Amino acid sequence: MLDYTHVENLSAADVERLRAVYEPLTRSVRDLVDATIRTEVDADTVAATVAEIDDATARLREKQRELSFGIQFGADGDSMPWGNAVIGIRNPTAPPLAIRRMTDDRGEWVTSDFHLGAAFEGPPGHVHGGVSAMILDHVLGDAASTPGRHRLTGTITVRYRRLTPLGRMHAEARVTHTEGAKTYVVGHLADGDGVTVEAEGVFIEPRWARG
Amino acid sequence: MLDYTHVENLSAADVERLRAVYEPLTRSVRDLVDATIRTEVDADTVAATVAEIDDATARLREKQRELSFGIQFGADGDSMPWGNAVIGIRNPTAPPLAIRRMTDDRGEWVTSDFHLGAAFEGPPGHVHGGVSAMILDHVLGDAASTPGRHRLTGTITVRYRRLTPLGRMHAEARVTHTEGAKTYVVGHLADGDGVTVEAEGVFIEPRWARG
Repeated sequence: MLDYTHVENLSAADVERLRAVYEPLTRSVRDLVDATIRTEVDADTVAATVAEIDDATARLREKQRELSFGIQFGADGDSMPWGNAVIGIRNPTAPPLAIRRMTDDRGEWVTSDFHLGAAFEGPPGHVHGGVSAMILDHVLGDAASTPGRHRLTGTITVRYRRLTPLGRMHAEARVTHTEGAKTYVVGHLADGDGVTVEAEGVFIEPRWARG
Repeated sequence: MLDYTHVENLSAADVERLRAVYEPLTRSVRDLVDATIRTEVDADTVAATVAEIDDATARLREKQRELSFGIQFGADGDSMPWGNAVIGIRNPTAPPLAIRRMTDDRGEWVTSDFHLGAAFEGPPGHVHGGVSAMILDHVLGDAASTPGRHRLTGTITVRYRRLTPLGRMHAEARVTHTEGAKTYVVGHLADGDGVTVEAEGVFIEPRWARG
């Protein structure tokens, strides 16, 4: 059973206020992560910077949640998956993806445009294949899910057509069909020149989440 | 064609010196990432911390590489995949994995023991399924590769047996067989109670890397 945290006294306005407080912090740390990878400053400068960062960390830890952020809900049902490794607006390691839900004549689908920089590198100048798999897992899972009905990955297959250069990219996914508790989804990652990685997956509604 | 950077004047001792300079910085930023996700300090404290972090970032950016770290090699052939999203010791978003190469009566295999905290969360208290896929992609790719012969993922299939709790875990992989340019690999992720996620993949040596 998963432990979703419902914060009883948190109104929708409170949720927005919290977002405005913490999102700039996440952005700052994300920028620091990039600078940490690329810096070539000398040993003394690095040491001084480490002291400054450790000071900032100690201050943030003066009051903190145990272990991880979890998924919190406000009193009005606002979902805050803010620690999530792919979409978390409070997780500096997330790109983060903002996923939009669309509808066309073939039904619903999901799409996201985002940027991957130095933190997501595998082969020089290119996205780590594992990062592509991580993002597609999330985007396909989002396509498989509906509000209040979260489906988890059963199996996913990822096919690499060519290397994906770091930079701007696009991901999308849609459900092809369902069979009982199984939802089948396809999707891909693309750069400006077209599809670089394809994925197909089977998503399931966990037993403990079924009505 | 990938752009590997060969740093002609960098001896093995220089590589060790650079590691000693930059690895503590990465560790500090990794700790800050965790604190950023979990903190509950008030808005004023967050704002003061943001200013401090932006100052640290500006100092690190006074001298930096363009775009990303790439894969650099020292004069003695020491490989420095230090920006890598999974194993990079200069990438604060990497766990990072240290992968060991082993041999038993069935041949060579690779193994890694590591910890995944708040930054790798998907379902509350559990590893994001995409993170498991990312790590298995890397570990299977490492099993498929040999020194000087790097193989990239062609296709990978990941099967989720159950949720993986955040914390200590273990990954391993081995080659099952090869067919021409294709290397077939299987592996898994496990917690203290056994296997949580399985993977199998086909890895290929890129055309431009073949002799």
